[in-house]
Amino acid sequence: MTSPDSDQRFHSNPELLVPIEGDFAGKDILSMSQFSRRSLERLFDVSGQIEGYLETDSVPRLLDGAHAALIFAEPSTRTRGSFGSAVLHLGGYEPLTDPYLKLFPNIEDPEFDFRILDYKAVLGDGGLIVMRHPQEGAVRKAAEVLRDVAPKVVVPIINAGDGIGEHPTQAMLDMYTMKKRFGRLDGLRGVIAGDLKNGRTLHSLIRGLSCYKGNTVYLLSPQELRLREEERSVFASLPISLVEIEDREQIPEDANFWYWTRVQKERFKNPEEYEAIKDGMVLTGDLLKMQNNRNMIIMHPGPVIHEVERSTIDLDPRWIYFEQAANGLPVRMALLTLVLGKIK
Amino acid sequence: MTSPDSDQRFHSNPELLVPIEGDFAGKDILSMSQFSRRSLERLFDVSGQIEGYLETDSVPRLLDGAHAALIFAEPSTRTRGSFGSAVLHLGGYEPLTDPYLKLFPNIEDPEFDFRILDYKAVLGDGGLIVMRHPQEGAVRKAAEVLRDVAPKVVVPIINAGDGIGEHPTQAMLDMYTMKKRFGRLDGLRGVIAGDLKNGRTLHSLIRGLSCYKGNTVYLLSPQELRLREEERSVFASLPISLVEIEDREQIPEDANFWYWTRVQKERFKNPEEYEAIKDGMVLTGDLLKMQNNRNMIIMHPGPVIHEVERSTIDLDPRWIYFEQAANGLPVRMALLTLVLGKIK
Amino acid sequence: MTSPDSDQRFHSNPELLVPIEGDFAGKDILSMSQFSRRSLERLFDVSGQIEGYLETDSVPRLLDGAHAALIFAEPSTRTRGSFGSAVLHLGGYEPLTDPYLKLFPNIEDPEFDFRILDYKAVLGDGGLIVMRHPQEGAVRKAAEVLRDVAPKVVVPIINAGDGIGEHPTQAMLDMYTMKKRFGRLDGLRGVIAGDLKNGRTLHSLIRGLSCYKGNTVYLLSPQELRLREEERSVFASLPISLVEIEDREQIPEDANFWYWTRVQKERFKNPEEYEAIKDGMVLTGDLLKMQNNRNMIIMHPGPVIHEVERSTIDLDPRWIYFEQAANGLPVRMALLTLVLGKIK
Repeated sequence: MTSPDSDQRFHSNPELLVPIEGDFAGKDILSMSQFSRRSLERLFDVSGQIEGYLETDSVPRLLDGAHAALIFAEPSTRTRGSFGSAVLHLGGYEPLTDPYLKLFPNIEDPEFDFRILDYKAVLGDGGLIVMRHPQEGAVRKAAEVLRDVAPKVVVPIINAGDGIGEHPTQAMLDMYTMKKRFGRLDGLRGVIAGDLKNGRTLHSLIRGLSCYKGNTVYLLSPQELRLREEERSVFASLPISLVEIEDREQIPEDANFWYWTRVQKERFKNPEEYEAIKDGMVLTGDLLKMQNNRNMIIMHPGPVIHEVERSTIDLDPRWIYFEQAANGLPVRMALLTLVLGKIK
Repeated sequence: MTSPDSDQRFHSNPELLVPIEGDFAGKDILSMSQFSRRSLERLFDVSGQIEGYLETDSVPRLLDGAHAALIFAEPSTRTRGSFGSAVLHLGGYEPLTDPYLKLFPNIEDPEFDFRILDYKAVLGDGGLIVMRHPQEGAVRKAAEVLRDVAPKVVVPIINAGDGIGEHPTQAMLDMYTMKKRFGRLDGLRGVIAGDLKNGRTLHSLIRGLSCYKGNTVYLLSPQELRLREEERSVFASLPISLVEIEDREQIPEDANFWYWTRVQKERFKNPEEYEAIKDGMVLTGDLLKMQNNRNMIIMHPGPVIHEVERSTIDLDPRWIYFEQAANGLPVRMALLTLVLGKIK
Repeated sequence: MTSPDSDQRFHSNPELLVPIEGDFAGKDILSMSQFSRRSLERLFDVSGQIEGYLETDSVPRLLDGAHAALIFAEPSTRTRGSFGSAVLHLGGYEPLTDPYLKLFPNIEDPEFDFRILDYKAVLGDGGLIVMRHPQEGAVRKAAEVLRDVAPKVVVPIINAGDGIGEHPTQAMLDMYTMKKRFGRLDGLRGVIAGDLKNGRTLHSLIRGLSCYKGNTVYLLSPQELRLREEERSVFASLPISLVEIEDREQIPEDANFWYWTRVQKERFKNPEEYEAIKDGMVLTGDLLKMQNNRNMIIMHPGPVIHEVERSTIDLDPRWIYFEQAANGLPVRMALLTLVLGKIK
């Protein structure tokens, strides 16, 4: 895997994914593959500006007059809460989710389209949808429906996680966290550990890091949880160096970041297999002693279950879980403001 | 059915329904039969004013200090979202619906009254309730409870749809849409098609149009879905010309509006009957070619399921579904402001 | 039971309950036993100030920039609505509860901790949690988790009712109501009637009244619903005079307040027992005629079910149920502002 100049490059399927260059306004945010270094830098600049407003309790009502609907067809605390706060913080309005309408249809169900159009009708031109759905590709399907019917009424949609597909706003806040810590997003060395097969956050993060130059990521997982062939072949063409490792001893001593993820118990057919694997994937204090780089950081997309030895790690200053999560607010506020065209 | 002068006339049951003249403040909004030409004109004037604010992102916080509770005991996306946005847009506050309290009691259940009084207690004087309930008459029952107990604490209630009864705010936005398009609400010729038996929106719309002069409405439905006898006898006394037709060939060539509604599959005992009827009630491109009036509009209260040939109709400029839905916001904002007495 | 000087006294378990003196900022609000006369007076002063803002529709956005999460793991209309309004009124933001996440875990479940930390992550430093939970002690457990992990990220928690434990904010609004009526909270004589065994509101109220001097409370209940031994022994050490009575004839003629509560039907094993008891515990017009004190007030924490003879009591000016409930808003606004340190 090579690392050519990645500036101004897009990984988009031209039929479905519109590249975000300088201008986010009115565009659907479906995948990190729509982004370039330039568009990410724009996003992080606005995020920094908004973080300044937050710190001084002086957030302008940039979204006054805008409506957003949060359609979360899967449980969510952090992403949902963060988007909800972002909308309200900027002076926008969230038409409330109806508790009687809990089950959002599958994408194969004809009602999927009707329900999406119902939201379009209530939001009207200038509205925005944030959607999470358990099926990969569901948000893209919704985007097509929104564009095809009444195309003059523009209601962009943001992917807040589609099954094992992508979770682009998580990758954005992860990268914003790195940028604040290291002052750059080029030439980083990192470790992504855990369930690489089912983890949508890292699928987005690898795409995002490939927009910058000279990044190397070690992918640590047991054999059973390696990247899917599908993702592997896409990533092979990206300008990022990926090194798959299976043994914790192979973690480099000078990584800038560790990105730990949860082993998803519910995917295992044989519980004993899970038990054997899980013990090998716990982030322990002993493991961390191997690192010589005092400036490294340990990230986690949450929720933290059993894969971190909390008694030790919670006290380690390199464990920046809460700082990372807190970055979700300014980054999502920035994204909403840009997509709704409320900032030049 | 005759069409005498309808100005200043009320269709109220004087014991239960208080007429809205110039002054909406503190009154319950239960039925379109409370309205006169004068009160509807007042509502549309304020709606237009608020639409201007919305277009320039300069909505004054007219409801600052007011609380509204949305009690939706049936699913709703558009009406619920629109009322929720209206409250927040004007600076009001919505005490959130408790997801643990999903099933609102039947009106026969003694707990119905206690729960309504709970809402009265939390809202306090100057609060407002918006209620949808599957039973006809439920909102009127709630209004009685609210007035009878602690009458000095004034909490008006707005009907957002009571079973197959009425849906007055839908009729308000429908008429506002017509007024914007035609510059008048007198002397219109329209078609209301579909399920006239179970469609609460058209029960309200016919009442509303009868407040103006010289309106004629053709009611197109299969035999099985004609108006109920109960509604028919009420409407017979209203100053509006109603012409019941069963054949699409009888649609006049010069209608100003078509108002299409969904055939409610779930009411049919025999599925084959539904299949036969439903095909005859689809709004097709071919059917629309019969119309000579280029300025006519096609409306639909939503949601659109199978009764519109979307591939053709979605592209027709006379199909103003999204424009119509968008009018829900300024009209509901106007109604809230007037009922809470926040505008003179 | 004696009544020594109660000023500056705390009933705290020093290991768990931090006393609130002048400074509420950043402190968990778990029990009325954290409060002193001084801290309650501070709370009521700010409540009065905020009530003035509410009356003139001029509430400053004191919480701008703050986030609150309402975690209600039990049904609630008045408390939840009141806290929700309070947050929004002050310019705060409530990340919405996820309808997919309805069942909050038991405190024994390891997921209880993870979920609390999820909320901490989304709120970030300066956020606040309001929690109701069916288990006694659940809010205290949550407070420990919030303090132990990432202690520099300060997210205080407020108890909105923990099983049959406490409900401190209800006691605060009850006492604020008394103070407004009588101009003082010393030297009051009152009756608390109903289900003293299971009523968490009165457990908090007795603690609160013991912060003032010379108060006497008659506790009226059937034998089966007397105070639990546990509470009885705690209250015995408090500077408040408690007189247990079983017969309505023993109610003093000169009480300042009656505080009536619901007999909790669901706790009875034998329905006939409930029927027998319940009739003896109804607040009737006849009973009220016994009172000679025209300035007395009748309070009730709600909801009112069958234990009040509404046909008579609703018309009695001493029945101040709606006034009492309305005081929930300014008192909860004051508490939020103080705990978030937004007022000096």
